[in-house]
Parts: sequence; C-alpha cells; structure tokens
Amino acid sequence: MANFFDGSPTHEPSSGNAFARNPIDRRSEERGETSIPTAFADPAARLYLFIGDKAVLKDGSSDPLFPVDAAEALNLRHETLILLGWAATGPRLAATIPDETPLEVRGLRAIDLRALAVEGLVPPEHLGPLAQGRSLSYWHARHGFCSVCGQPSVMKSGGYRRDCPSCKAEHFPRTDPVVIMLAVDGERCLLGRQSRFPPGMYSCLAGFVEPGETIEDAVRRETFEEAGIRLGRVRYHSSQPWPFPASLMIGCHGEALNRDIVPDERELEDCRWFERAEVKAILAGTETIKAPPPIAIANRLIRNWVDAV
Amino acid sequence: MANFFDGSPTHEPSSGNAFARNPIDRRSEERGETSIPTAFADPAARLYLFIGDKAVLKDGSSDPLFPVDAAEALNLRHETLILLGWAATGPRLAATIPDETPLEVRGLRAIDLRALAVEGLVPPEHLGPLAQGRSLSYWHARHGFCSVCGQPSVMKSGGYRRDCPSCKAEHFPRTDPVVIMLAVDGERCLLGRQSRFPPGMYSCLAGFVEPGETIEDAVRRETFEEAGIRLGRVRYHSSQPWPFPASLMIGCHGEALNRDIVPDERELEDCRWFERAEVKAILAGTETIKAPPPIAIANRLIRNWVDAV
Repeated sequence: MANFFDGSPTHEPSSGNAFARNPIDRRSEERGETSIPTAFADPAARLYLFIGDKAVLKDGSSDPLFPVDAAEALNLRHETLILLGWAATGPRLAATIPDETPLEVRGLRAIDLRALAVEGLVPPEHLGPLAQGRSLSYWHARHGFCSVCGQPSVMKSGGYRRDCPSCKAEHFPRTDPVVIMLAVDGERCLLGRQSRFPPGMYSCLAGFVEPGETIEDAVRRETFEEAGIRLGRVRYHSSQPWPFPASLMIGCHGEALNRDIVPDERELEDCRWFERAEVKAILAGTETIKAPPPIAIANRLIRNWVDAV
Repeated sequence: MANFFDGSPTHEPSSGNAFARNPIDRRSEERGETSIPTAFADPAARLYLFIGDKAVLKDGSSDPLFPVDAAEALNLRHETLILLGWAATGPRLAATIPDETPLEVRGLRAIDLRALAVEGLVPPEHLGPLAQGRSLSYWHARHGFCSVCGQPSVMKSGGYRRDCPSCKAEHFPRTDPVVIMLAVDGERCLLGRQSRFPPGMYSCLAGFVEPGETIEDAVRRETFEEAGIRLGRVRYHSSQPWPFPASLMIGCHGEALNRDIVPDERELEDCRWFERAEVKAILAGTETIKAPPPIAIANRLIRNWVDAV
C-alpha cells in the first residue's frame, strides 16, 4: 500500500528559508506568571538583546547571546523581558536595552535583522529566535494600551499575552499572514519592482491575507489587483517567519491564465514577464536586474521554478 | 516538457471549505476615504447586517442581504459601516444594528455564523462575505482605542484601517494564522477531544502560529505539546477563513514518528489513535464518537486521509 506522505519532500522547503531555523523549545502550554523570573534566575539563562528594533551584537563575535550579568550591566529594561523558551543548554530570553546606551565604547553594535541575515553574521539557528524576539518585542512596544478601552495593559504569560486590568480584555501577539507568489506562464514568470526596492531589483508580488479569504484566493486577488493577471491553480511552496515586524510569509506558485499585464502604478514601478533563461542569469548575478537576496522567500520561489522541469 | 503545475489538483482543496467561497471583488487598492459613502449611496448597494457577533436573517428567506432602506429602518449604526467590495450586481457592505433591536416583531432573527453554516441557511457564496464582515466588525468593536497611546482611533480606508489622530499610528485588521493538523501513523490517525466539544466529538489538534516559526514547525510544536507525538513530514492541504473571530485555518497532514501519546490534560480531555475503518464509520455517523461537522476544515482533513490510498 502506498504511503500517504509519498510525494512529500523529505527535505522540507520551509526549513531552507532564512529565520525558519528555530531550535528553541517553546513549551507554550507551561507559560505562566513565574516563567520569566524563574528563567531569568537560572544561571544557564542567555539573552538576545535589542535596542529599538535592532539586535545587539558583540564586535568580532558571531554569538548573539548575552549572559544575565552582561545584560544587567547594559541596564536591560526588565519590563521588556520575554521568555522565548529553552535551548538544550538553558532558557533563552529577549529584552530591550535603553535607546541611549553607548554601544561602541562597550564593543557592541546595533544591527537590523535583515542585514544580520544577509551578511550571515550569526549561525542560522539564531535567526529564528531573533525573529521570535523581535516580533514579540515590537508587539509589546506597540501594545501598552488596551485597544478595547484605552487603559494601560500589562504583560502576562511569559510575554505571550497582555491583560487589561480595567476591562479584563486579553490580547495576544499578532502574526500577520502575507501571501507572496510567483506567477508562472509556461517558460516565463512575473516579477515586479516597487520604488522602495534597491536599484535594479525585481521580486515576487505579495500582500496581506485579508479577513474572509483563503490563502489561494489572497494569492489570486493580489496578483490580479497588482498586475491584472488572473491565476488558476495555486500551489503552496513554503512559509517563513519574517520579523518586519511580525509576518508569516506564505510562498506560493500560481498558474497564469492571461498575459497582458495591467500594473497598479501606486504599488509597482514596473512589472514584467521574464524568460526562464533570463531569470537564471539574474539569479547568477550577471545582469543589471537583480534578484531578491537569498534570505527572501521570493528568491527561493524563483529558484524553485527555475530549477524545476 | 512537463507543466510546472502537474500534480496540483485542478479542484483546489481550499475551495471546498466552508466560508471559502467569496465572490466579492475587494478592489483593495482603491479603498479611500469616500469608499463607504459612495458605495452606500449606490442604489445597487446591499448590506450584510450583524447584531453583536451574530448575523441577521429574514424569517423564511435564504437571502441574507438587506437593501439600504431596510437597513436604515433597523437603525444601522453608521459608524460600523464597512465596505466589503463589489458583487456582480453592486457594492456589498456590512454593518451592525443596535443590540436592543426587537427582531422577532420584524420577522428577523439573529444567528451565529457557525449554526448558519452548519444548517445551510444561506447559499454558500454568502458565507465568505459574512465571514469577512464578521471578522472586520469584531476587529473594529475591539479596537476603538489606539494600542500605542490609549487615545480613541478612527476608522479609515473603507474599514480596513484605523488611524490614531493623537500619535498618528496606523492599525490594520488582524487575521490570526492557526495550524490544524491530522497526525497520521500508517493506518491510524490521531484525534483529540476538548472538554468544550459537543458530547462524543473528536477532532484534529490545532493551535495558533507563533511569532518566529514556520507553518510546519507550528504543526510539529502543537502536536508535540498537546499529544507528545513527534511529526516528520508535514504536508499542507488547504486553508479556510474562520470568523471566530478572525482566524485563517491552515490545514495540514503530518507523519507521526512515535506512537505513545502523552496528552496535555489542560488542553485535551482525551486523545487517541483511531484506525482508518473506525474513522470511516465515525464519518458515516454510525458511531457514538462523532466527527467534526463538514463545515470544519478538520472534517475535510480527516476525510481526505480516509479516502486516500
């Protein structure tokens, strides 16, 4: 009898996406009011530190973790402590240090997670926890008040909930599903360019999943709205946590049903069909037109199609 | 040359899920400050009405739409008007009527969207727009205040944004990705029972995707946390908008790597392996143990596995 999972790859596409590797055991069911102080008091505890929305790294080191005493010396803001979970060697937390901290004199620097990932400054297994920490920290920073009644809310459950003491509302961290897709028409694929992109870069189209639609319908809607291209079959490829600030990228391929592009000029500076051979050269970096960086799921969607067949 | 989409079903699994059919053209790029009044003034405009979190239906009618004058006669709360988009016959909006509206004397009733879907009270193409309307209405009802600064926020962009006049923060509707999965071990699958389920019902395990994890990792984490079962390969099946209040259900199958269940008793009253033949009988409705209703993506994940091979 055939195995139900025949045809599913043993190497999972999602696991190859940047920010996807996260060895932390979250033990989400065990989170409670003592989780953070207990973890913080553990001599094996290590912290990922943020300043604003950037990660703090030590000059000349690829280890992004700080022991508790080093974090304390940087005046970590205790009210920003979040428990990420447990690595094999002990608890992992995230916290924010004050904006005005002088980093240079301490041999530290602040770096955006995108640059950190592109430059490969830390081993890939730290990117998932850093994404987790940044998304949660951002959510707390923007949710100090209850959206139901306007009163201050307080962090609970290890950093995975905020409660409103006034109206008793409970609030949970946001994760925003975003579809990102490569439309394919035989030997051509559709790439677009937003004005905010680096010079020469073209990428997949993308957009937020809205209330009341499936992943596949969101893929079709965004492709039609941005480029005037109707899609038939839509196939899921992989997903990626994308901490800018807290998206879940859902990567798909879609089968184009028409060829005439009607670009939405408010969204796209340009949008065109590219032949497979041209895309191969773009991925190889020999062209004026540039592909999105390998850390982007768009790069992997494009590469997956180029390498197929 | 093989077609890149070979192997993708022409009948998309997601399209068979309840709340998935949504014929409304959202034209999301065109939303602006005049969208709602312009659409509302269109004689072809029709409204889905809500009272609290329930839909308003006319007795003896399967048409959930109200013309503008009928909605006005019910004192629709103008500040709750949301533009869903355009059907072939005109604009579609959603609005809430006052909680104290006497429905019975007007030949109306309030019904939960779950019951409405289970009982098939309206044609399926209305379920998507009703889900869209309910999720958005719920979001506005719980986001009258800016979470950044605590001041009142105002609806913008046809109902797809709230702006804070005080701190200038922009807020967007939430859609919460939830993984729901059927763990499979050869001829057995794993079903669990929460104490809040109807008597005898067993279903798939499920949980929210957290910041910093992929869909597949969330599937594995939740299955391990709730049942102690480790999963290897995880395969996406379909997605479903689930307006209770605003989830995107992401349905997957997962390949079990061990057999010994360690149930999380805070989450599950019971959790067991079921043989394929037993599950067939459960789906047929001949057993004491009940399957989730066909409107639930869990039902379709189970049925898909039972029917496979």
